[in-house]
Amino acid sequence: MPVINVQMLAGRTADQKRALAHALTEAVTAHANVSPDQVWIVFEEVARENWAMAGKLVSDR
Amino acid sequence: MPVINVQMLAGRTADQKRALAHALTEAVTAHANVSPDQVWIVFEEVARENWAMAGKLVSDR
Amino acid sequence: MPVINVQMLAGRTADQKRALAHALTEAVTAHANVSPDQVWIVFEEVARENWAMAGKLVSDR
Amino acid sequence: MPVINVQMLAGRTADQKRALAHALTEAVTAHANVSPDQVWIVFEEVARENWAMAGKLVSDR
Amino acid sequence: MPVINVQMLAGRTADQKRALAHALTEAVTAHANVSPDQVWIVFEEVARENWAMAGKLVSDR
Amino acid sequence: MPVINVQMLAGRTADQKRALAHALTEAVTAHANVSPDQVWIVFEEVARENWAMAGKLVSDR
Repeated sequence: MPVINVQMLAGRTADQKRALAHALTEAVTAHANVSPDQVWIVFEEVARENWAMAGKLVSDR
Repeated sequence: MPVINVQMLAGRTADQKRALAHALTEAVTAHANVSPDQVWIVFEEVARENWAMAGKLVSDR
Repeated sequence: MPVINVQMLAGRTADQKRALAHALTEAVTAHANVSPDQVWIVFEEVARENWAMAGKLVSDR
Repeated sequence: MPVINVQMLAGRTADQKRALAHALTEAVTAHANVSPDQVWIVFEEVARENWAMAGKLVSDR
Repeated sequence: MPVINVQMLAGRTADQKRALAHALTEAVTAHANVSPDQVWIVFEEVARENWAMAGKLVSDR
Repeated sequence: MPVINVQMLAGRTADQKRALAHALTEAVTAHANVSPDQVWIVFEEVARENWAMAGKLVSDR
């Protein structure tokens, strides 16, 4: 039943998401004792203007 | 005070969201002992390329 | 595929959660065109000390 | 290590986000005993059609 | 309408949360053009065993 | 900058979390072009009474 939310900067290609979904699912099935169909993943793509670190927008760095 | 986040594939119409907001709010007020104005709902629409199940992007299924 | 996260103050009984899970699932299947087994719900119970409105902790109101 | 997710209606300017990121980071470093580089903030902009209060979409109010 | 979720390591006192809730609400009302009663904040306290950075649990650092 | 939230049923051991944190971080660094120290992971452990699938609490299945 794990639900995995991945918040990351926008800009990954479909191929990167495809590989990421596969690898994250393998990680969870290997170590959390669940079957692959029980793993749901949601990618949340964040604009550089909507992410801040150390008080600064990433778009300003 | 409940906050309800609904992550779902993009593509619902405004009418569907309207009906969904009404029905979810009724469900919560009926069973969680809160008044309707205390119920906030956020719909997060997810692209098919950003949702994976069983290690596969929904856009690839 | 909807995932519904419900953040609410702690204190609901198992019976309330049971009724809430049933009613929320009905709301989504009725209006978002998905089958019940595609609806996952997570209740996040929040202590009164961990929820603030208008700048005040709920535990202080 | 705090991660701060801010869900708000879309429409703030980059300048508002810049000021908000700065002020939220100051609030956390002042009161939660962390250094600024440990504070990550994500703004999630929500369309008026995707936010409901009291069972009504904000876009219908 | 902002909802602010703060994920942080467990261990802050009620006084720290009180000050934090006040300061975060001020930051949002000052820069996002909303009234204080429209600001909801949820603190999610995370055990050191449930937070990882650079592939290592915080409890192992 | 990815933040990964993993919602799963409670009950994993520290060793499982340790292995999971390591494997998830490897997956992200391999496929999303980030360095390990940029990957933050939060495990949210959910009680069986707080997770529902197909309208039924997991604790009732």
